[in-house]
Amino acid sequence: MKIAILGTGMVGRSIAGKLRELGHDATIGTRDVAATLARTEPGAMGTPPYSAWAADHDDVELATFAAAAAGADLVVNATAGAASIAALEAAGSQNLADKVLIDVANPLDFSGGFPPTLLVKDDDSLGEQIQRAFPNTKVVKSLSTLSAPQMVNPLMINPGQPDGSQVTVFLSGNDQQAKDTVADLLRSFGHADVLDLGDISAARGPEMLFPISFRLLGVLGPMFGFKIVR
Amino acid sequence: MKIAILGTGMVGRSIAGKLRELGHDATIGTRDVAATLARTEPGAMGTPPYSAWAADHDDVELATFAAAAAGADLVVNATAGAASIAALEAAGSQNLADKVLIDVANPLDFSGGFPPTLLVKDDDSLGEQIQRAFPNTKVVKSLSTLSAPQMVNPLMINPGQPDGSQVTVFLSGNDQQAKDTVADLLRSFGHADVLDLGDISAARGPEMLFPISFRLLGVLGPMFGFKIVR
Repeated sequence: MKIAILGTGMVGRSIAGKLRELGHDATIGTRDVAATLARTEPGAMGTPPYSAWAADHDDVELATFAAAAAGADLVVNATAGAASIAALEAAGSQNLADKVLIDVANPLDFSGGFPPTLLVKDDDSLGEQIQRAFPNTKVVKSLSTLSAPQMVNPLMINPGQPDGSQVTVFLSGNDQQAKDTVADLLRSFGHADVLDLGDISAARGPEMLFPISFRLLGVLGPMFGFKIVR
Repeated sequence: MKIAILGTGMVGRSIAGKLRELGHDATIGTRDVAATLARTEPGAMGTPPYSAWAADHDDVELATFAAAAAGADLVVNATAGAASIAALEAAGSQNLADKVLIDVANPLDFSGGFPPTLLVKDDDSLGEQIQRAFPNTKVVKSLSTLSAPQMVNPLMINPGQPDGSQVTVFLSGNDQQAKDTVADLLRSFGHADVLDLGDISAARGPEMLFPISFRLLGVLGPMFGFKIVR
């Protein structure tokens, strides 16, 4: 598949790298290609500049949000949650129309420092905001509850454990066929426990896992994940 | 131990019944003893009237909030979240002073029907509200992420699975000794995976698991639980 990944951070890089490994065509989208490539300083949280990552991944193209989305069969929103609607507007609703959009962003407000707070209460979600803003796009919320490395390597936490202990990855979206497409892609990443929560309003649930995730990060470090036992 | 359980619903009954099984002295607290005993109709969600349960549990005393708390070494808040502060005020701060209070309530607003919505955003929690209102009480948030039967029977979901698949139960509180006391009690209930999230502000995390719990209930029915894989 030809896949556009909007966002040049750790999440976008992690997903793009995995998609290339699996033989997909991957283009990363950014607001300003020249500015992204010109940056030489680490970003917030010590993320290495994009150019350093790109040097090892010359099979991943970098393009504007619009060019990346225009050429893609499927689009991944890996931008910061607070900037996602603007990034998708820059990508262009015509370039997103009738396509599956996997929304992996978290609606977090970093304006007050760390830890960030949620931009939504439990009566809305970023997934729904995106679906409302782009009604002709098939939005599927997924992967947002996992760290960037775990998104594409679900066995990294306890590789010696049976499948029953693998982390759960959630799906929310209005279009069943779109969710089936995303579930297949997740399984190709190694996810054995894909759980469909329902329509896009179900995205409220996984988005509100952030407050406990932050606490767990403080207590356990990054090597943890949510498993729904049943 | 002499334990007061405030609240006559499924959660209070479940915990009181288990405490008696384990040989503790259990008193359930209510606003109006005569009114609680006089009710003959099922409550919201089809809960049988208290008197029907009490007929099979004559070793559990029923008393006013204040009388129950006054005689107890440890108190459990199993009232509805929206009514918890009022119930604890009725119990009396002098009757709660220097005691461990396990807060198992969820801050839910049922005024708009089902599903309820959260009464807090991620900048506060019911656990913190109770700790602020009763500064001399050692508040420990716990068990709120589990159904009433699972609180006292953590192996009910997948009894054939190894301990590694058991649900996780969270602890949040400012007093380490109080958390140790609660952890011991939880282990006596059968909980093998007790996870300390930190001070009482960490209660925000588990309280915000409600929106995903509601969706999971719709998809999976009541037989599910959260396991933190690590």
